[in-house]
Amino acid sequence: MIIMMNTTSPDSIQRVVEKLKQHSLDAYCVTSNGKTLITAVGDSAAHDSDLYERMSGVEKVVNILTPFKLVSRELKADDSLVHVRHVVFGSPLIPVIAGPCAVESPEQFLETAQLVKAAGASMLRGGAYKPRTSPYSFQGLELEGLKILRTVSEQVDMPVVSEVTDPRTVELTLNYVDMLQIGARNMQNFALLKEVAKTDKPILLKRGLSATVEEWLMAAEYIMAGGNEKIVLCERGIRTFETYTRNTLDLNAIPLVKHLSHLPIIVDPSHGTGNWRLVTPMARAGVASGADGLIVEVHPCPEEAVSDGPQSLIPQNFTQLMTELSKIAAAIDRSV
Amino acid sequence: MIIMMNTTSPDSIQRVVEKLKQHSLDAYCVTSNGKTLITAVGDSAAHDSDLYERMSGVEKVVNILTPFKLVSRELKADDSLVHVRHVVFGSPLIPVIAGPCAVESPEQFLETAQLVKAAGASMLRGGAYKPRTSPYSFQGLELEGLKILRTVSEQVDMPVVSEVTDPRTVELTLNYVDMLQIGARNMQNFALLKEVAKTDKPILLKRGLSATVEEWLMAAEYIMAGGNEKIVLCERGIRTFETYTRNTLDLNAIPLVKHLSHLPIIVDPSHGTGNWRLVTPMARAGVASGADGLIVEVHPCPEEAVSDGPQSLIPQNFTQLMTELSKIAAAIDRSV
Amino acid sequence: MIIMMNTTSPDSIQRVVEKLKQHSLDAYCVTSNGKTLITAVGDSAAHDSDLYERMSGVEKVVNILTPFKLVSRELKADDSLVHVRHVVFGSPLIPVIAGPCAVESPEQFLETAQLVKAAGASMLRGGAYKPRTSPYSFQGLELEGLKILRTVSEQVDMPVVSEVTDPRTVELTLNYVDMLQIGARNMQNFALLKEVAKTDKPILLKRGLSATVEEWLMAAEYIMAGGNEKIVLCERGIRTFETYTRNTLDLNAIPLVKHLSHLPIIVDPSHGTGNWRLVTPMARAGVASGADGLIVEVHPCPEEAVSDGPQSLIPQNFTQLMTELSKIAAAIDRSV
Amino acid sequence: MIIMMNTTSPDSIQRVVEKLKQHSLDAYCVTSNGKTLITAVGDSAAHDSDLYERMSGVEKVVNILTPFKLVSRELKADDSLVHVRHVVFGSPLIPVIAGPCAVESPEQFLETAQLVKAAGASMLRGGAYKPRTSPYSFQGLELEGLKILRTVSEQVDMPVVSEVTDPRTVELTLNYVDMLQIGARNMQNFALLKEVAKTDKPILLKRGLSATVEEWLMAAEYIMAGGNEKIVLCERGIRTFETYTRNTLDLNAIPLVKHLSHLPIIVDPSHGTGNWRLVTPMARAGVASGADGLIVEVHPCPEEAVSDGPQSLIPQNFTQLMTELSKIAAAIDRSV
Repeated sequence: MIIMMNTTSPDSIQRVVEKLKQHSLDAYCVTSNGKTLITAVGDSAAHDSDLYERMSGVEKVVNILTPFKLVSRELKADDSLVHVRHVVFGSPLIPVIAGPCAVESPEQFLETAQLVKAAGASMLRGGAYKPRTSPYSFQGLELEGLKILRTVSEQVDMPVVSEVTDPRTVELTLNYVDMLQIGARNMQNFALLKEVAKTDKPILLKRGLSATVEEWLMAAEYIMAGGNEKIVLCERGIRTFETYTRNTLDLNAIPLVKHLSHLPIIVDPSHGTGNWRLVTPMARAGVASGADGLIVEVHPCPEEAVSDGPQSLIPQNFTQLMTELSKIAAAIDRSV
Repeated sequence: MIIMMNTTSPDSIQRVVEKLKQHSLDAYCVTSNGKTLITAVGDSAAHDSDLYERMSGVEKVVNILTPFKLVSRELKADDSLVHVRHVVFGSPLIPVIAGPCAVESPEQFLETAQLVKAAGASMLRGGAYKPRTSPYSFQGLELEGLKILRTVSEQVDMPVVSEVTDPRTVELTLNYVDMLQIGARNMQNFALLKEVAKTDKPILLKRGLSATVEEWLMAAEYIMAGGNEKIVLCERGIRTFETYTRNTLDLNAIPLVKHLSHLPIIVDPSHGTGNWRLVTPMARAGVASGADGLIVEVHPCPEEAVSDGPQSLIPQNFTQLMTELSKIAAAIDRSV
Repeated sequence: MIIMMNTTSPDSIQRVVEKLKQHSLDAYCVTSNGKTLITAVGDSAAHDSDLYERMSGVEKVVNILTPFKLVSRELKADDSLVHVRHVVFGSPLIPVIAGPCAVESPEQFLETAQLVKAAGASMLRGGAYKPRTSPYSFQGLELEGLKILRTVSEQVDMPVVSEVTDPRTVELTLNYVDMLQIGARNMQNFALLKEVAKTDKPILLKRGLSATVEEWLMAAEYIMAGGNEKIVLCERGIRTFETYTRNTLDLNAIPLVKHLSHLPIIVDPSHGTGNWRLVTPMARAGVASGADGLIVEVHPCPEEAVSDGPQSLIPQNFTQLMTELSKIAAAIDRSV
Repeated sequence: MIIMMNTTSPDSIQRVVEKLKQHSLDAYCVTSNGKTLITAVGDSAAHDSDLYERMSGVEKVVNILTPFKLVSRELKADDSLVHVRHVVFGSPLIPVIAGPCAVESPEQFLETAQLVKAAGASMLRGGAYKPRTSPYSFQGLELEGLKILRTVSEQVDMPVVSEVTDPRTVELTLNYVDMLQIGARNMQNFALLKEVAKTDKPILLKRGLSATVEEWLMAAEYIMAGGNEKIVLCERGIRTFETYTRNTLDLNAIPLVKHLSHLPIIVDPSHGTGNWRLVTPMARAGVASGADGLIVEVHPCPEEAVSDGPQSLIPQNFTQLMTELSKIAAAIDRSV
């Protein structure tokens, strides 16, 4: 990784890229914080740091051994902060995103939004485009759902995140939400990753059902290499042999990702367990393990939810969860 | 599932759909073999078969207990045949698809095509759009690759299959290939499934890395419910704890899918194992287990392949594989 | 499950057992807290509660739907407490067990014991019989190791737990340790389970590498049905596809087991992650999820440990861990 | 690995062992085919081959890179043959072991034995000590079962294999069976492995439910390092996320093990799938993949079996299986 000085000229960048080509290395340029970062990829990548370090406009050369470069802690030692309007991920203050699995109606979404705001949530979630295993299941309200998200988000003054599932609807969705979610099933939908990388919206990148941490960080690398640095990772449970839980929430990933990457990471105990009884203890555990945020499904009436009822908290339990999280956060010198 | 008579009128169909709505059932219509099939979904689906069977234009009502309906063996007892030009999947004759992981150049692809044809392959494979874990890996020749596929396919007179990864490139790709592949990472990319469902090209639907057989059949159901019946399933290895092999080829899926569904199913021992040494024995085992075809990676010079070299056969080993497959096929009264 | 009164006579018990036989039900009797519990197993188990409830000496009949009976929360709503000398598992006070993977020498074990005691650990761990993947790896000091365990345990006045791997050494081991550990690889070593069930020592039952929670509770049921109620469960990581960590510590199991069973459950973040960097955050998370204790590997010099060095904490880090745990425990109204 | 000459003296062996100690290497001696093999383990194992090769009595030194040594193909290029009375595993003739999951009565076992013999099976299987998930399930007829095995084995003149689950019953079992089975749950029960290693009976070593191929070969290494070379490996399905099948029969392990080891390997499609419908196609696939034998559950009346009914073949289906296997075996120049 070659880090160019803030003040460097396009010519200097060009000369570095050409020198890399002479050494049979591919060069990928991206701008971060006003600096151009040049990722050099190829067999002899490790060689000749000195040569490049002496070139005009080069600030420093960092050898990064992991396959992910831009997202790696080796490149950037400090925690990255990701802002979603006034909400910040990566700081000692831990945001909680809450809301129903799917937006079902203006009334349902507004009611939930008001309830979770009252309980202390700082951001809303709600699905408008729903990836469902069956073609015969409710597929989301789509554009109508997006409009409800926007309206309610403004009514309660909370930013909102919603999932995109198709590169063709990314641009449309930008108008209605504050953060774009890439769902677990699309973690390696590279066409979609490249599309959201072109936007300047923050991205919530969920871990795939059977993705290794390395594959997940490589998916984040796609977004960052595509020009979008505002990435929040989300652990949401992996697929294992266990059948009592819908997924196995893998909290090991929290300290592991914090060690490997500078990106903020949050926890989804609702999908992660699939069982409302486990949501509160696993939310507590998530914060204790070092997570930078939480995303929780809350529904005023889970038994009538069109999707994911069994894992949704009733508002009363969500309030209890928030109280418990405050105490855990305080114990590690953070707050919710 | 309500099967309408061939000769039924739009009015009769409409009356059935309305009656279903009165019973709070959703109705999904699709045409198969000139007949309209109405999938009724909802809580009371099992009730009142008699009522519907007595309605005008209804041929019969089938209660299907599995969540997949149109692809189920319960709906259609006979094996479906899928034609890709002159190649047929699902008959006693077992087609072998062969070719390199990625199209690298006209010369490389033509040479491979001629070699695999000489060895007895009946169809070509080659990637133009490559889903790669790293943004820094070769992403395929894209349109240029499609053009090479078409040219060589005509030169050697063999149909060709290639992967689509983005709903926006489906229409373009139709002009160049004879069969569209949905790769493992996109098995639950529902936007893509819905897009290929609108085409009349045969679809090769690979199993997801950690997809259950039920989820896989549900993905096929998306395509069939979207109007495209020409689906060939492909087992390509699942993710397990084993580290010696890249994936674990799950041949249990072959007889299981043949039991649950009428669709043809083929085996990919190259991705399934990730190790060329295992390709031939697992290809033999695939045919012995009842697979309706094979897809095998062959490269004239695997150590120079831009992707998947370690799992590619050299042409000489592919010729040996074809010889061995003939004998296994003959042992179960089929042929390659 | 038929619960007999404290004061019931052997005759009454016998009459119940015979009545069960008449209904083709198998009867398994065990004594708990002075009461005889009769587990009735067979197809019609659910029937005729009334009949049995009216029989002489019967206190009540409980229908338990899970396959595990004696360990189930349905049978006993209150948390069970397990005493290991003065250390108690299952109460608000959370014991921490610490020590090296293997006992290597009297000096190494004494030094570690003194260090962990100073840091606040309440109990010692140390392996004398080591189940190792390779026959060429250090297999433990065996009897010599047990003697060191006993001596040091008395010197520092802390109870000690050590693993048994062979039914033939159970009796011997009883003389040297305060708690017998069943390791992950032996969770379904039923001969061993039946043997430790005959003792009156508390048992630390680790979860198997790929055991479902149900299988684990069934293993505990073996011990309880064999007459030993003093069981502490230990989550120590399951096998998944992830390769960055040695195992995947499954904290979901903590609230799940607390919901399904009355037994105390502790967490082993050392084996659970295989990486010392993850031990402290996962220990915090374990306590936050509701665990009743911890077991942690500590070695004065991990790089020289004969086994499990990479996952062992140095004493300084263990002290830090204890400080952090106190705060987390306080946040949920418990203490360490 | 240092291979001593046939004619070498104890003194020469001793000198090699001492030299290894001087180099801080551990030496493990075992006799195979009249030759002493010395496994040297330690950091500098790779060094100084020349030095040892020049020592008196040394035939040659082989550097084996895999952690398993004695069972590795690197040590012994030829396939090992394992004889169980007149039945041979590892030759072109493929033995089929058949019988019920558990011995239930003399009549049931004799009837099954006669039926499977008539269909062409060459060896019997039957459980006397059954490892069961639940303490309330049938645990086998134990000694009475062993006696039935012996009697019927002699009546029909077929060797018999049965499982041992406890090191204390190994010696007793030797008197009644021709081959000892180590079940999947005991693959890493090292006390049991060491005990059967001391016998001269052939061992059927099943793969653990979540054992990697390397761990499995290390378990075989335990037996061989303990002095017993007569090992037949058995693939019996691994644990994955798939729920339609009880286990996932991993046929990839067949060619992989044949590549890594000289030991014979057989396939258990009954446990491997848990579903009788899949047994015959997966048996065909097993033979096609290169397996050296099969073990199949057959029960005259599966719906009345005390265990594993759903995966047992009725005799008529077993006869059909044998016919199909003959054809597949012939196609790869082997026979059943």
